[in-house]
Amino acid sequence: MKIDIIGKGKVGTCLNDAFSSAGADLRLVNSRTFEGIRPEADLVLIAVSDQAIHEVSKRLMESQTYAGKKPVVAHVSGTTPLEVLEDWGRRGVFYPLQTFSKESEIDFRQVALLAEWNCSEAESTLRNACDILDAHFSMIDGEQRKAVHLAAVFCCNFLNEMIASAYSIMEENGLPEKILTPLIETTIAKALALGPEKVRTGPASRGDLMTISRQMDALKDKKGLRDVYESVTGLILEKTKNG
Amino acid sequence: MKIDIIGKGKVGTCLNDAFSSAGADLRLVNSRTFEGIRPEADLVLIAVSDQAIHEVSKRLMESQTYAGKKPVVAHVSGTTPLEVLEDWGRRGVFYPLQTFSKESEIDFRQVALLAEWNCSEAESTLRNACDILDAHFSMIDGEQRKAVHLAAVFCCNFLNEMIASAYSIMEENGLPEKILTPLIETTIAKALALGPEKVRTGPASRGDLMTISRQMDALKDKKGLRDVYESVTGLILEKTKNG
Repeated sequence: MKIDIIGKGKVGTCLNDAFSSAGADLRLVNSRTFEGIRPEADLVLIAVSDQAIHEVSKRLMESQTYAGKKPVVAHVSGTTPLEVLEDWGRRGVFYPLQTFSKESEIDFRQVALLAEWNCSEAESTLRNACDILDAHFSMIDGEQRKAVHLAAVFCCNFLNEMIASAYSIMEENGLPEKILTPLIETTIAKALALGPEKVRTGPASRGDLMTISRQMDALKDKKGLRDVYESVTGLILEKTKNG
Repeated sequence: MKIDIIGKGKVGTCLNDAFSSAGADLRLVNSRTFEGIRPEADLVLIAVSDQAIHEVSKRLMESQTYAGKKPVVAHVSGTTPLEVLEDWGRRGVFYPLQTFSKESEIDFRQVALLAEWNCSEAESTLRNACDILDAHFSMIDGEQRKAVHLAAVFCCNFLNEMIASAYSIMEENGLPEKILTPLIETTIAKALALGPEKVRTGPASRGDLMTISRQMDALKDKKGLRDVYESVTGLILEKTKNG
């Protein structure tokens, strides 16, 4: 199977590395020039920013790259509907649930590939691509994909921000960030093993309003952090019925 | 060195297990009855809730357990000042920076023990206790300890809540939580290896206000989660100057 990946950003680069390592017949293509794109490709993965998917798809169609049978065209976005590719007869979504950066290689054997398609040919093409990566294939519709993306914002982007916030407090007080590492690692290990609802600790989980009030006070000049402290504490108090 | 631990809660139990494993001369004592407490103890660790430390300390003093030389008395709290133990001539704080639960044993070799004391004898006693556990000993004053505790709330309690929030979104949409595991593990690994400021991803970090607005809308009937989404997004927008 010939796969062309359009877009040399973080996701495109990581997909390229993973397909290459797996020995796939692959091209990584610039999203502006389409240089090197193959008319005989079986699958084209559009790996550009959400806002650019439709425009790239349209330009690709207008480029008349495909004289004969058109490829299956899929995007890799968590938030963009399948319909944005409606110009293509066989289309799909191929969304790898993972956080990407150019520095670090992803082990796709641990990644859930959330896929959607409009026909059985698109389905089998996406399944084959997933098999090449040895990833977990899940069929998921557009609404569910949106929910997964929202969940990912909480457990990836926001989780990272909790660590960034902790580090900023340490730094400001001249304390070494690294003493927090075992605490972070233990917290994650317990949450994943036992479930986060079962391993809550801390002032809000035990309804310790005095400590909460002291800590809110300590953050009185840091509006951003204080708003986060207040809202997350509110959520914990609500869930633990301490509010 | 004879160590008595007062309080059979999560922290007392974990300290007891760790000192026992290390072969320490140890007693774990009920905080109401003080049954089994030893008049010849060298170190007494008061491992009770923050609010109860002062009362337990007072009752211990009034119990006249110690006819001769009094032990070094320390509490294990992240938020309580050393002065709450002012009845004792030699006193200290012995705060293990970790999250405790009765189910799981803690590897203290990975734990920072944040200590404070009022005299050199208390210092050497606390250092010896830390050596028994093979933990990392750090001197830290009361203000710094408060800052560390606040940082810990963010990177332990709040971090856990981000996972709980993600799981609740998955559950509500009939999606399996476990597909998030690789994402969570990769997020932590990258944050710890490269620093959370360097590995931000997601809608807020790229100033994608359209996705933010759509996700806020998806949470419109969930006030608790929406408040958290709004405040953490606000913090990220502020830090990345996308706001």
